[in-house]
Formats: sequence, structure tokens, C-alpha cells
Amino acid sequence: MNNFNIRLVIRVMGSLLLIESVVLFITAIFPIIYDENDIYYFLLSSLICLIVGGLGLFFGRNHSPHIGKREGSVIVTFTWIIFTLFGLLPFWLSGSIPSFSDAFFETMSGFTTTGASILNNIEDLSHGMLFWRSMTHWMGGLGIIVISLAVLPVFGVSGTQLFAAETTGPTKDKIHPKIHETAKRLFAIYIALTVAESILLRFGGMSWFDAVCHSFATIATGGFSTKQASIGYWDSSYIQYVITLFMILSGINFSIHYFAIKNKWEKVKHNEELKYYLIVLFVFSIIVAVSLVDFSKVQSFQTLEQAWRDALFTVTSLMTTTGFVTADYMFWKPLTWVILLIVMLTGASAGSTSGGIKMIRVVISAKAIYFQFKQLIHPNAVFPVRYSKHIVREDIVTRVLTFTLLYLTVTAVGILVLAMSGMGFQESIGGLITCLGGVGPGLGQVGPAGNFANIPEFSKWFLSFIMLIGRLELFTVLLLFTPAFWKN
Amino acid sequence: MNNFNIRLVIRVMGSLLLIESVVLFITAIFPIIYDENDIYYFLLSSLICLIVGGLGLFFGRNHSPHIGKREGSVIVTFTWIIFTLFGLLPFWLSGSIPSFSDAFFETMSGFTTTGASILNNIEDLSHGMLFWRSMTHWMGGLGIIVISLAVLPVFGVSGTQLFAAETTGPTKDKIHPKIHETAKRLFAIYIALTVAESILLRFGGMSWFDAVCHSFATIATGGFSTKQASIGYWDSSYIQYVITLFMILSGINFSIHYFAIKNKWEKVKHNEELKYYLIVLFVFSIIVAVSLVDFSKVQSFQTLEQAWRDALFTVTSLMTTTGFVTADYMFWKPLTWVILLIVMLTGASAGSTSGGIKMIRVVISAKAIYFQFKQLIHPNAVFPVRYSKHIVREDIVTRVLTFTLLYLTVTAVGILVLAMSGMGFQESIGGLITCLGGVGPGLGQVGPAGNFANIPEFSKWFLSFIMLIGRLELFTVLLLFTPAFWKN
Repeated sequence: MNNFNIRLVIRVMGSLLLIESVVLFITAIFPIIYDENDIYYFLLSSLICLIVGGLGLFFGRNHSPHIGKREGSVIVTFTWIIFTLFGLLPFWLSGSIPSFSDAFFETMSGFTTTGASILNNIEDLSHGMLFWRSMTHWMGGLGIIVISLAVLPVFGVSGTQLFAAETTGPTKDKIHPKIHETAKRLFAIYIALTVAESILLRFGGMSWFDAVCHSFATIATGGFSTKQASIGYWDSSYIQYVITLFMILSGINFSIHYFAIKNKWEKVKHNEELKYYLIVLFVFSIIVAVSLVDFSKVQSFQTLEQAWRDALFTVTSLMTTTGFVTADYMFWKPLTWVILLIVMLTGASAGSTSGGIKMIRVVISAKAIYFQFKQLIHPNAVFPVRYSKHIVREDIVTRVLTFTLLYLTVTAVGILVLAMSGMGFQESIGGLITCLGGVGPGLGQVGPAGNFANIPEFSKWFLSFIMLIGRLELFTVLLLFTPAFWKN
Repeated sequence: MNNFNIRLVIRVMGSLLLIESVVLFITAIFPIIYDENDIYYFLLSSLICLIVGGLGLFFGRNHSPHIGKREGSVIVTFTWIIFTLFGLLPFWLSGSIPSFSDAFFETMSGFTTTGASILNNIEDLSHGMLFWRSMTHWMGGLGIIVISLAVLPVFGVSGTQLFAAETTGPTKDKIHPKIHETAKRLFAIYIALTVAESILLRFGGMSWFDAVCHSFATIATGGFSTKQASIGYWDSSYIQYVITLFMILSGINFSIHYFAIKNKWEKVKHNEELKYYLIVLFVFSIIVAVSLVDFSKVQSFQTLEQAWRDALFTVTSLMTTTGFVTADYMFWKPLTWVILLIVMLTGASAGSTSGGIKMIRVVISAKAIYFQFKQLIHPNAVFPVRYSKHIVREDIVTRVLTFTLLYLTVTAVGILVLAMSGMGFQESIGGLITCLGGVGPGLGQVGPAGNFANIPEFSKWFLSFIMLIGRLELFTVLLLFTPAFWKN
């Protein structure tokens, strides 16, 4: 293939690996603090990243500065794969996760902020491993490349293509004309949210270690916990409400946080995605809460509060695609499973750390459908779709409709593939939707009380791929599989 | 509301009721032939239709000739509801189906060619009732109004709006410039297919009665049988292959049959919907057949043929949205359920008697998605969607995309409503998809060995509504629920 700037691709990926090397090196502090004997694996993994990253920098030298759509898609897709391949080293080398497939699945689940696990007993892991596991969430949440753009303003290339390929949503809010300034502002908000939640969780009685790990998992909408029972381990309504609040915040477009900080309330007020996100979240929480209460008996305030808290926590956790668990919803009515599957499909907001279709696309699709009805009645009139008081360009409407349909098509085909691999009916549906949306728990054996340890080997690799295309919003990765992409 | 031509609506519905009256009167011949004592109920029902239809003609006299989109939607939607309300009379008055909700469900299931039943023992019904039950399929298959246009060329109004609102597919093939000539040709094909299948089934050992009833149900892609065990009652591979063949033929756009008769093979060969319909049908049949065979043991030819026949029959039955049953697929692997759900969603061809999204929309949606990828790589190029060698207008692509998304949205919301009404997880998914697509059997308790007798009362009414909007392809009915429809 002509003109594909392979040197630049190698160089950018090399420099990104150096960042992974540094983070692995820093993680080596935990074996020292907690007097655990696995420091060697973190240092070795860090060294391997350093060497391979350095080789990338070397072989990618003298690259031309050109970076197009193709280079952007390749860099972003392979960055996520390579980060996973090197990020699994501590788990695999140390024997914490002896199977390579399992280690790949767990690490991809981390970076894509899915939170689906193959671990049967999370608490067997050392502090270092647990921290690294939560750290993969935190690096993947805002985006490996967005964080890199924030801390390393110069790759020698414009980051615009990479930024567009990694962040979510049909349109990119420009909060600053320069891309690395935008990245810096997003990263600052990300850090501020993480610090704030850590402090509040510490107040609630968590150790600093657990508080930070859970904040990483919350703000990234990841879902890995340091405990087998997830948030259910802490029998504290304070902790549950704090985490619920920060899950909701993490499901909001980070540009909105920025506008709020800058006191531009007009922009916040008129944002339709925010409005519908909160409406859907609370309406479904109320329905689930009502379904949990047996109204044929007189209920105490405590029972009602418990039902509301469980419902709100679970709907928020699954809609923001975090995947924390306080209750096993497999014991709830099938109605709640349907609601949970629906919010796992929609996800929260574009430009947040959450996965799924995103509310903005749901809103625009719904308006496009409604306008089709109007068009039927008035065939000669033109009805432009408006969103947050602006007219949405027709090609963007088409792109949103095709994305949403593609997402649902991938869902159907993916469920078929999982079922062909031998998984059960509920497991195939729940497992696919939860991994594509980057949520975590599914239904049945891969539900909140289970995990992905016992699914077939093939399904683990397939779901790892599904997590990747879900996180990168389908087009970035699937583009590489279209013949048109490789033609000049 | 201004200008709504209510007199015309009443007059057209009145004349249609006279057709139902005639058909009910003809059905009264069966109690005579088989010496059964329920002739009274058919004559009474026929008389009621005659009186109400006559009143409609009287009160609708002196109508203005104007018929618009609104009148078209109202006439078509209410025709189907009224035909169901009067069509249930024999079942209900005779006590064959004592519950009014059940009788409504069964009759709506008949007219919409769904074939979902609430009967626990079909063979308890008299010949007259069984014939009327199959006749509802046959009247609904091609379309109540299309048949009426064919036999009664003059309503005093142009049938174009009504024809468009009742027939399926995003574009209407014009096989004749005059709408009642088109209807006549379609009706002739419909009759020819029905007669051919009846004769072939009679040869296979069915009685004439069963042969005709099953032909009605096949060509209309309905699915009502005269036997509790459906087609499984006849342990004859000949009968199963004949029915499979006619199900496949009934899933083809009737214009294609017309072109084939007229020797216009070019139009047949270049039809992409036909191509993909057959590809999907056979590929899925092969996958299901393979999943039914235990290849770890040596298999006899007979076992392999049986597996292939069961797989082909079941996939064809569900993809053409007929719903005949020869095997209880709830004992098959979950993989097959996923395949069956997918083909129930896609359905067969537009302009056939089948339901679902229709292959033409699936093909155009898939192309629109693929072209979105091309657009990403070449943002300034324009890629028109081509279908059967013609460029598809952009507004039609948008309409197809919105229809497909709306169909999937109705599916998700409908499953939620069924689950809220107290149905199980499998039952909600299977029940909704099968009724919206006009198929018949779902999953679990509403699967091939079960029926809809024991679902909640509310769910029966809701699913009756779902069958109606599915048969009329959503827009015709849902239009009535949009505020824009009632505004001038």
C-alpha cells in the first residue's frame, strides 16, 4: 500500500509505550509499601516496555509529518492492543493470572473500562496487582492518547486525528482550539473528580488504597473492585451514594463539567443530552425500585430506602457502563433485566468515559424517526433535526442513524457468535451487550454474582475484540477491516 | 379537526364490511357439509356485518372524493381493527373461544397472518371454525384492501393511498399503472399459488379440507394449522418439503412472480432482495442443520436428511414469518434460538405476504452503513447507495434507516412492556419479536410446543396491538398517535 506513513505509526506507538513503562515502574512502589514479593514482575514489565518503546522510537525516526485518517485509525487501534499486550505482563509473568487468554481478557477489560473479570477470587491478588488492575481503567477511561496528549504535548505530529479517533460522540466539542490544550483541560477535570471521590470515600471508612482504586474505577466508568463482593463489601449507604454520585458525574460529557467550572451555565442548561440522560436514569431507577417493593404489605422506611438505593445504584452503574455491583439483580424480576439491558445499550453521554450508543445518538435518532412521521404527512416540507437549539447537518444525522444501526447489528451478530461458541441464551445476550458497552456484569452465569472465567476460550478472545471495538466506537477499528480502507 | 373526510372513511369501511359478511356467509357451508350444528353463528355474524356495513354505506353517502394520507391511514388501520372485531364473532358467540380477549387475540393473529394462538386444543374446533380461522389468514395475507380493490374495483375513491398504506416495503413496484389492475394481478398470483399448493398437499395424503386450510396459511405466511401438532401431525417428508417450497415462494415479492410469469427474467435476476433472501435462508438453515447433528458419531443418511429437513423447515417457517412447526426447537441449542430470532426480525421480502423488517431494508441499511465507512476515508466524495443496479434516492435511504431503527426500538420497548406485564425473560423477547413480525411461535412457554393462552390479559391486548402495527409496517398505525397527524 502506498503512502501509508508506517514510520510515524511506529514512532507514536513507541512513545506511548514509554508512558506505560513509567506507570508500571511507579506501580512497583506497592510491593515495597505492603511488603509483598512481586516487585520483580513490575520492574521487568516496565523494562520490556522501555526497550520495545525505545526500539519503536528508533525505527520510527525520520518519519514524515503526514498523518491522515488511515494512520489515525491504525495508531489508535494498535495502541489499545499493544497496551493490553504489555499491560498483561505483570498478571501473567507473576502467575496471578496463569492463562494468557485470561490475562489478555482481564487487561483489555481494564483498558476498555469494561470491568468484566475472569477472576474467581479478586482478594487473592497482591496490592500491586490490584492497583495496576485499577490503573488500566484509569488510563483507558479518558483515553490513552488523550492523556498522552495532555502530558506529552508534542508527538511531533498533530494530535487531532488521534483525538477524534479515540474520543466518543458524533461531534467533538472544542473547548480549546489547540488539541493538547483541550486534552489538558479534560485531564485536569478527570484528576479533580478522582481526587474528590477518593477523599469522600476515605471519609466513609475505606482505606486510602481502596478509596483510590475505586475512584479510578468510578471516574473511568470501569467497574473493577478490590473486593470479590464489589461495592456490596461495604455495608454503607454513604459509600454507595458517594459512588452513585460520581458515576452520574462521570457519565456527563466532560465539556459540560468544563462549562460549569467556567460559569457558562447557558451551555449546560440547553444541553439536551444531559437532560435526557438524567430523565432516563431516574425514570428507570424509579421503575426498578417500585418493582423491588412488595406493596401488598406495609413497608418500613428502611426497606423503601434500601430498594431505592439498590435500584438507583444498579441502574446508574449499568447505564454509565461502570459495572459496580451492590445486589445480585438475577434475583430481581425479568423486567429489571430488560431495563438494565436497554440502559447498557444506550450508555450515558458522548464525551464522557462511558460506553454504549450514547444518549446524544439516541436523542438524534429518535428525532429523526419522529420527523419521518412529519415528512409522511407533509411530503414537500423539510424538517431539519434540531439538537440543543442548533440544526444538525443532514450528513451527521445519517451518520448517527448508521452508527446506531451498526451498533445494534454488531449486537445481534455478536450474540449469534457467542451462542455458536457454546454459551447459553442469557449468557450470550448479557455477555455481548455488557462487553460491547464496556459495562462488566451480564446475565446468568456471567451476571453480577458470576464472572467470565468459565466461558469458552474462543469467546474470551471474541469478547476482548468486542470490548475494543465498543470502546473505540466501532468505526475506528472496523475501518481497518474494510477493503476501501486499504485502497488508494 | 378540519377537512378530515369522515364520511368517506365510514363509507369505505362499510363496503369492506360487506365483503366480510359475504365470506362469513360462505363459511356457513361447512356446518352443512360436515353436519355440525354451528351454522347459526356464521349466519348471525354475517348478518351483523351486513347491517353495520349497510349503515356505514348509508351514513357515508354524499362524501367528497378527497382522500389524503390521513384518511388512508385511518381507513387501513380501522379496517383491520373492525375486521377483527366482527371476525371474532363466530368464535366468541359459539363459545369456541369463550373469552373476548382471547377471541380478539386469535382473530387479530389470523388477519395479521401471525398465527400465534391461545387455543389449547385446536382439534376441538368444528370444521367451520377451523376454516374461518384459516380464512382470516388468507384475507389478511395479501391485504384486506388489496383483495377488495381486486374484486371491487370501484370504492368511489382512488385506491392508491390505501394500497400504499397496506402493502409492505419502502418502494411500491408498479406492475400496472392502474391500482386496481395491479391488485387484480397480485390477487391472481395469490390464488394460483394457493390452488397449486392445495393440489400438491392433497396428493401427499391430506384431506381437501386440511390441504386448503394449510395452503391458506402457507401462502399468507400465517401459520394456523388444523392440528394441535401443526405440520408435525403428518409424518411425511413430502408434505414438509411441499410446504417449505411454498413458504419460500410466499416470501418472495409478488412482483417477481409476475415478472417471472411475463418472462422478464432480467428483472428477476437483478433483484438483490431475492438474492440475499435466499442466501440468508440457506446459510442459516445449514448452520442450524449442522448444530442438530452429533458429528462425534457416524450418522446415517436418514438422520442427516431429517436434520436438514427440520432445519430448513424451521428457518423457512420463521424467516417467512409463517410459523408452522415440525419440531420443538426449545430442545435445540441456544444458538438456533438466536438464529431464529434474527430471521424473525429480518423477515423475507417486501411486497410478499411476510412480516418483519424485510430483506430490502436490511440490504439497503447494510449498504448505507458500509458507505459510511467509505465516506470516513474520503470525506469529500459522495457515495450513492445502489440497489438492484439503481441509485436509491437519499430520502429513501433515510426512510429505510429510520424504519429499521424504529422497528428495533419498538422491539426493545415492547419487550420492556411485556416484562413489566409479568412475562418471563425468554417469553417477553420471543413473544414480542414473533408477534411484531407476524410469525407465531416464540420462546419458552410461548414457544413451538406452547401457546399464548396463559399470558396475562394485558399482554394479550398489547400483543394484538403489536401484531397490527407489525403487519401495517409501523408508520401507518403509529402516524395516528403523532400530534402532527391531527394538526392542519
